[in-house]
Amino acid sequence: MPKSSFQEIILKLQDFWASKGCLITQPYYTQVGAGTMNPATFLRVLGPEPWNVAYVEPSVRPDDGRYGENPNRFQLHYQYQVILKPDPGDPQELYLESLKALGIDPRQHDIRFVEDNWEQPAIAAWGLGWEVWLDGQEITQFTYFQQMGGVSLDPVSVELTYGLERILIALNNAKAIWDEEYGAGTTYGEIRRREEFEHSKYYYEVADVERARQMYDLFSAEADACLAQGLLVPAHDYVLKSSHTFNILDARGAISVAERQAFFRRMRELARRVAESYEQQRKELEYPLLNETSSKVAGSQAKPTFQPSNPSTRSGQALQPSTFILEIGVEELPADDVDAAYEQLNERIPTLLDELRLEHGDVRIFATPRRLVVSIDSLSPNQPDREDRVKGPPADKAIVGHVFDVPDSAGEASHATSVTYTQAAIGFAKKNGVNTWDLEVREEGGGKYVFAVVKQKGRPTPEVLAEALPELVESIKFEKSMRWNDSGVFFSRPIRWYVALLGDMVIPFEYAGVLSGNISRGLRPYDSPQIKIPSADKYFDMIRESGIVLDKEERKASIVEQVQQAAALVGGEAIIEEGLLNEVTNLIEMPTAVMGGFDKEYLSLPRDVLISVMKKHQRYFPIEKNGKLLPHFIAIRNGDDIGIDIVRQGNEHVLSARFSDANFFVREDVKLKLEEYRPKLSSLTFHTKLGSYLDKSDRIEKLVNELIPMLKLENDEAIFARRAAHLAKADLVTQMVTEMTSLQGIIGREYALRSGEQNDVAFAIGEQYQTVPQTVIGLTIALADRLDSLVGLFAAGLAPTGAKDPFALRRAAIGLVQPLIEHNVDFDLADAVKKSAKTQPIEVIDETQKQILDFIAGRLKVVLNDMDATRKYDVVDAVLAEQSANPAASARAVKQLQWWVGRDDWSTILPGFARCVRIIRSAQVDTAKFKVDPKKFVEDEEKKLYDAIQSTVHIQPSTVDDFLNIIVKLIPSINAFFDKVLVMAEEEKVRQNRLALVGQIANLSRGIADFSKLEGF
Amino acid sequence: MPKSSFQEIILKLQDFWASKGCLITQPYYTQVGAGTMNPATFLRVLGPEPWNVAYVEPSVRPDDGRYGENPNRFQLHYQYQVILKPDPGDPQELYLESLKALGIDPRQHDIRFVEDNWEQPAIAAWGLGWEVWLDGQEITQFTYFQQMGGVSLDPVSVELTYGLERILIALNNAKAIWDEEYGAGTTYGEIRRREEFEHSKYYYEVADVERARQMYDLFSAEADACLAQGLLVPAHDYVLKSSHTFNILDARGAISVAERQAFFRRMRELARRVAESYEQQRKELEYPLLNETSSKVAGSQAKPTFQPSNPSTRSGQALQPSTFILEIGVEELPADDVDAAYEQLNERIPTLLDELRLEHGDVRIFATPRRLVVSIDSLSPNQPDREDRVKGPPADKAIVGHVFDVPDSAGEASHATSVTYTQAAIGFAKKNGVNTWDLEVREEGGGKYVFAVVKQKGRPTPEVLAEALPELVESIKFEKSMRWNDSGVFFSRPIRWYVALLGDMVIPFEYAGVLSGNISRGLRPYDSPQIKIPSADKYFDMIRESGIVLDKEERKASIVEQVQQAAALVGGEAIIEEGLLNEVTNLIEMPTAVMGGFDKEYLSLPRDVLISVMKKHQRYFPIEKNGKLLPHFIAIRNGDDIGIDIVRQGNEHVLSARFSDANFFVREDVKLKLEEYRPKLSSLTFHTKLGSYLDKSDRIEKLVNELIPMLKLENDEAIFARRAAHLAKADLVTQMVTEMTSLQGIIGREYALRSGEQNDVAFAIGEQYQTVPQTVIGLTIALADRLDSLVGLFAAGLAPTGAKDPFALRRAAIGLVQPLIEHNVDFDLADAVKKSAKTQPIEVIDETQKQILDFIAGRLKVVLNDMDATRKYDVVDAVLAEQSANPAASARAVKQLQWWVGRDDWSTILPGFARCVRIIRSAQVDTAKFKVDPKKFVEDEEKKLYDAIQSTVHIQPSTVDDFLNIIVKLIPSINAFFDKVLVMAEEEKVRQNRLALVGQIANLSRGIADFSKLEGF
Repeated sequence: MPKSSFQEIILKLQDFWASKGCLITQPYYTQVGAGTMNPATFLRVLGPEPWNVAYVEPSVRPDDGRYGENPNRFQLHYQYQVILKPDPGDPQELYLESLKALGIDPRQHDIRFVEDNWEQPAIAAWGLGWEVWLDGQEITQFTYFQQMGGVSLDPVSVELTYGLERILIALNNAKAIWDEEYGAGTTYGEIRRREEFEHSKYYYEVADVERARQMYDLFSAEADACLAQGLLVPAHDYVLKSSHTFNILDARGAISVAERQAFFRRMRELARRVAESYEQQRKELEYPLLNETSSKVAGSQAKPTFQPSNPSTRSGQALQPSTFILEIGVEELPADDVDAAYEQLNERIPTLLDELRLEHGDVRIFATPRRLVVSIDSLSPNQPDREDRVKGPPADKAIVGHVFDVPDSAGEASHATSVTYTQAAIGFAKKNGVNTWDLEVREEGGGKYVFAVVKQKGRPTPEVLAEALPELVESIKFEKSMRWNDSGVFFSRPIRWYVALLGDMVIPFEYAGVLSGNISRGLRPYDSPQIKIPSADKYFDMIRESGIVLDKEERKASIVEQVQQAAALVGGEAIIEEGLLNEVTNLIEMPTAVMGGFDKEYLSLPRDVLISVMKKHQRYFPIEKNGKLLPHFIAIRNGDDIGIDIVRQGNEHVLSARFSDANFFVREDVKLKLEEYRPKLSSLTFHTKLGSYLDKSDRIEKLVNELIPMLKLENDEAIFARRAAHLAKADLVTQMVTEMTSLQGIIGREYALRSGEQNDVAFAIGEQYQTVPQTVIGLTIALADRLDSLVGLFAAGLAPTGAKDPFALRRAAIGLVQPLIEHNVDFDLADAVKKSAKTQPIEVIDETQKQILDFIAGRLKVVLNDMDATRKYDVVDAVLAEQSANPAASARAVKQLQWWVGRDDWSTILPGFARCVRIIRSAQVDTAKFKVDPKKFVEDEEKKLYDAIQSTVHIQPSTVDDFLNIIVKLIPSINAFFDKVLVMAEEEKVRQNRLALVGQIANLSRGIADFSKLEGF
Repeated sequence: MPKSSFQEIILKLQDFWASKGCLITQPYYTQVGAGTMNPATFLRVLGPEPWNVAYVEPSVRPDDGRYGENPNRFQLHYQYQVILKPDPGDPQELYLESLKALGIDPRQHDIRFVEDNWEQPAIAAWGLGWEVWLDGQEITQFTYFQQMGGVSLDPVSVELTYGLERILIALNNAKAIWDEEYGAGTTYGEIRRREEFEHSKYYYEVADVERARQMYDLFSAEADACLAQGLLVPAHDYVLKSSHTFNILDARGAISVAERQAFFRRMRELARRVAESYEQQRKELEYPLLNETSSKVAGSQAKPTFQPSNPSTRSGQALQPSTFILEIGVEELPADDVDAAYEQLNERIPTLLDELRLEHGDVRIFATPRRLVVSIDSLSPNQPDREDRVKGPPADKAIVGHVFDVPDSAGEASHATSVTYTQAAIGFAKKNGVNTWDLEVREEGGGKYVFAVVKQKGRPTPEVLAEALPELVESIKFEKSMRWNDSGVFFSRPIRWYVALLGDMVIPFEYAGVLSGNISRGLRPYDSPQIKIPSADKYFDMIRESGIVLDKEERKASIVEQVQQAAALVGGEAIIEEGLLNEVTNLIEMPTAVMGGFDKEYLSLPRDVLISVMKKHQRYFPIEKNGKLLPHFIAIRNGDDIGIDIVRQGNEHVLSARFSDANFFVREDVKLKLEEYRPKLSSLTFHTKLGSYLDKSDRIEKLVNELIPMLKLENDEAIFARRAAHLAKADLVTQMVTEMTSLQGIIGREYALRSGEQNDVAFAIGEQYQTVPQTVIGLTIALADRLDSLVGLFAAGLAPTGAKDPFALRRAAIGLVQPLIEHNVDFDLADAVKKSAKTQPIEVIDETQKQILDFIAGRLKVVLNDMDATRKYDVVDAVLAEQSANPAASARAVKQLQWWVGRDDWSTILPGFARCVRIIRSAQVDTAKFKVDPKKFVEDEEKKLYDAIQSTVHIQPSTVDDFLNIIVKLIPSINAFFDKVLVMAEEEKVRQNRLALVGQIANLSRGIADFSKLEGF
């Protein structure tokens, strides 16, 4: 194939979208991060007017600059932006047609629609859709806008954002953009590379922070001034300028976390005001475009109008039980939503069939990214008929003049004339569709009532289903759902077709603007050909023939097999992580493994970086051999193996570019030692009231010094812990972590090693973010970090409220208790909180410290409950009621108590102790005030119990086991005591002496557990 | 013809220029005033690399905003920018082809290339070219860039800048842009009109001046920072942002004249540094594009290579005298350059033919915008042969041993042997191509010399012309000239062909990269068809047949006739101003008058505005009836009358848009009374040291109060003068004057009348800028204004130096003396300067005042000399030597002296007086110290002279006439005195007495004239 040039791609897209009825406009005249910011999108998607537009947009993103060294990452790239408003009904097909116009044949490539929840907080906008991947490379963002500038969109707009550079690379099967033709024989590199270098340098090194801040202030002040005068476009321009300036400051590393919030709030508020004013303005203009019919992109699918279903579907009912198939055809669902829909249908269908009173055979549910399938064997053609006896008013209120106890000798005629039905009876009969004379009198619950016998004819199944299916579809819910057309229906992604067949009969219904039928669609890479299903029992064969693997487990098994085979080819083993496997399985309908390689030099990158890039970014399976990665990966393509080499090369290119990017960061980063990054933490705000991350880091160091004795660290461990604490946060300001936050700690560990730190130090840094660090050194700095966050942020008034937990303090609390439990390390949280409080720059009053401890206890409860699924909540509650400041001890107590509760003789142990506790409680006295005086014993059992206690309890028990072992020994004496002795004796002295005796036992559980919270107490 | 849409035009241009090998790029991402600022032009035109590019550019010009009310003037319009580097050789033809691609048929329209000297001082750039007019509307700027960022360009780039909106209007024959289709059925107005309103309002009313100033400072500081790091594109971006911000400030009216200079200096300096750095950068990269042959737009004309002319042109010489034709084919010359070339050729050709020794008949010269023609009748086929006698060394140095005085009887043989030629003789003979024995000995000037008789064969005319013609073309000079191709030749506009025929023979030569031939080109509107001229004598017929009127007078006469006829059609008379007629004549080769009309409502605009727009902007002839304008105009089209209706409509549209624009300004302006504008003058800086125009206006008022008695104004006049002075400058801050500065004063007059001012006041305001105001009131304020400028600016150190006169002080000085002379008003300039000095905010020392008076005297001299072409300089010099502070008096003196000098007896008058003056001067005494004492007279003639003086001179004469009438009477006595009396007598007393007597006469000319400066003194 002849190579394409950059300008050809643009000219072809212009022609294509112009031919589809789009307005072709120009890039915006001020720097924007994306075509979305151009008013041709930002403003025009608002309100009810149709709008179809396409344009190129140079998109400037300072922190994507790579000095012209990365093959496809740049501070400026060209987007091709298309807006289709309203949804033409087949935007994916239009999009794929446009790719064909560019020469991209879907049969030769792997084109995928990969979930993408688009969000742009700076302009209060969001939408759902996909990244479109071409051979692993994201070439387009495809979004159904839901909100813009804080305004809900109606109709929804479809946004297509092509990444033109990446398309050129893919079309030319190139390694990098630079040597590809821009046009007229000139390379892209000639046009842009030097500029790319200059701007990268400018944004990262030269831009003056103080001046940029001033510019930001001036721009946003000017935006305000424009808004005050109703000048929306000028205002929007200044919002864009503010935004670009913010991006410069961000690339310069000049924005702290707290500041970031403030910046975003400001920009968002301005964007919102612009959007709202625009809506108002268009309304006042009475929406001039509403009547311009010509400005519509006509989808190939006309808007459906409900065609009365073939009468035969109603009259010519199947007489035999038949197979029923419902296929809900959708645009690619997110992997999680495939599972969610599957679960819901699996649960709902049997119940639904019961509710609908339809007899049926096996029910099977299938889910792929493009279809949700319900298959029901032998579905009865009708509901069965049924007779219901409906209770009416009391007989004496219904029927008058008919003394029904006394037989009338006068014969039937006289009997008949003597009956009079009241209005109540007449009404009741009418309501139930029977004659009054058919009402029966029956006795029920001791009274007599009239009853109507209501016969209900079973309705034909098609009729029942036609009513039920829309509700069924509606009942499927997703974590995030969206609107797309004027039906206003919410779903994970747009519904585009239904197959609804009972035998060979279409069950007619409409939902979400889509009509049911018998046409399914084939695989994406085959252009989703229409597949006419003649009858439900043919469905599975036809779908299989079309190459689609409906069954998830089958797809999964196939992937595992192919991946393992491929890995074996290079003598390695694939790293198959279940989460990734599950996701990949839900991204395709026909899996074909594609193995590719990458340059060995990248193996020098940290392993976690490599794996993270392959798995998280690319959904590839890495391959290792003897614990070391091989320079290969396995991707799963949707489709067969036609054009597989192109697919492989494409994926290799993408991975190479991503590794190159990581390489860029690492190479830049290791120019400094890890320690040298630490001072830069001062520019990273932790929280305005609590200072920078450098301040936090200093506090952690101090606290670690306090924790060292508490955690009983050895000498070496203490030294390492202090060093690890010193360096723990330094990686936060490296470029690699700035780019991939999930690698925090891991990068710290790598850079620590490369900076010559001790292994133990590096390892501890690496594990600080793990919920349960493996080493005590890691544990020490992790605890210090989490304590500091909890104490500081609570003191700053940022305790989590309701669902809000922006600083992830719940996780921090879990991160305190869980490792202490797992390492079984005794630790006084109250003391630790107090020590952390002393290091904080703001006061932490006692009340706050108590709140913190309560909050941690709450998490401890969750952790303890989650640790053993068989555990009953009462055990945990009982323990935590008495001890929660030492999680390890609590955990041991729970474990022990659990064992005791499980003992066969528990039902004898607990009641005995309970008698002691209850009597004390009901007496409402403080037994501690009384002393046992053996001289005051009246009964022999008192003395015996006293002796038993004396011989058993030498010290106050400190564990559940100690305590219960004592109780077990005392049980006979306790029981004997209560059987014989009336504790609440009339004589006060006797009574107090007895209470004191029982109180000795009851008080033994103090600090161990509150047994009254146990079941059976 | 189906209507076009805006986006179709763009897509067609993209396709067209892509097909011609242009790179198609995108608009720039920051606001620019023109596509020229895009680095794809600004940077890429620098240096030697080829570069051909085309792109759309939204061009933002704040002060063009019209709130969306003007049909084709907007703060944002879309340009289509094309750069062709190097010149492909036929850029005009390529351009016209692109218009055809858009559907613009040159036969149906009037397409004109109208001189435009493009200059953009903010980026130190300039070039020469044209505005391309389509039916009177400027639709494209066509420029050969000469310099960019202060760097001379080599090669030169051709820039085409299409105005896309105007092209759409023309294509659709629309009245305004708003209802035309942008694309996809949506109007341009829908896309842009509201935004146009908002931005107009923003730029004129809302933009915050203080913030904009701060932005400007930040941007330019950032540009500096980038330049310091060699980051050119980021630097350039900030230059653009500075420039846009400057434009905002300017539209807000916040930039004073002096500030403007500083702003421009700053921007220019930055642009220069960017350009120079870029040149350096490309050099270091070794000009990567130099070898990319594919990036060239191939003109249809290949680069000429000199083909050896047909040998027949040299050998087969014409034997008969023949007609010679030289046609220099050029791209459209500016009107003035047509005349300049004509003048030069007219003067040069006869001389040249003499120098070339070519006999010839009539010589005729013709000039049109596209061709310069030399026609020579009966040009001799050869130079005549000639014999020259060349003088050599003295005979005795040349020839030895030959006693040429003495005949030798020994016969010829001995004679021959006795002659020896020296080396001097041999060398001389060789040098002159003769044999030594052919040297002749001749006597000359008393000595004998050898002579060579050199016979020169007349060379064939073709050979002579082939050498001479390149030099002839080179000799044509223009006020502004340009380079265009690698010949490096300068000319007014590119030379594209030569016809050079002697009879039927082509005279072969090459100049400016163009070869001579026998192909001419026809009319532009006919696509400049090639016209093969078989022989010179057919030239005129063929050119006439092709529709071209070569003769300027013929074209002019035709225009006058057509214009008068057209005006008569509407019952009016055309206003035919000679300058305009001359210009129009030079803009076309075939004149056809087109009469159009405009809306009567515009007649309410000031007449001067209407006329100014029609004449100056559009080159139309206005029509009036009984002194009132009619709503019609006459345009002159280049070509015949095909499609004349379209041409008329186009021109009507343009004029309507221009009037609409003027209407906009006037309507806005008259919302305030003229008086209310006066305070706004405070925002208009006159000069930083001298304050604002409000300050100047205050000074003028003060000075007018002083001038009123000096100029002897009547009571009413004084009142009016004070009021006129108060209001004189107020119109400078109206929008109309801001837009059309040439209407200053005129607008003031109009607005004064509309504000209810007295007619006399309004009239004076109107004539204040005329060199010679008609009324004394106008004169008063004009003098005050000019005096104030001269005195203030001289004091501020801004006296003109050399050719520099940025404040037009020479004109101001002429404006002082000329009206005083023409009104013959006596006026003491020295006193006036002193009075003005007192009003200045800075000190004006005596020395400066003297400089000012000297400067004025210098201008006075020029004026006096220019007043009468017959006048000799000595008369003016004589008068000005004694009186220059009262111009009217000086003028009268000059006139009188002129008369005296012309008298027949002048040669008797002057010497007599001269004797008196000379004797006093040679005595070097101050005669004023001596008194005449009649008692000391020795000779009778002394006494007689003394008596004559006593009886003639009663008072010191004050005019030339008075003085000379005295002298005439004294002449006999003077002559008698000098004839008889020895003034310089030995006895001191006698001598002093005589000198005192003569001194009385000599001193009579004091304050009148210095007669010693006269010829004949």
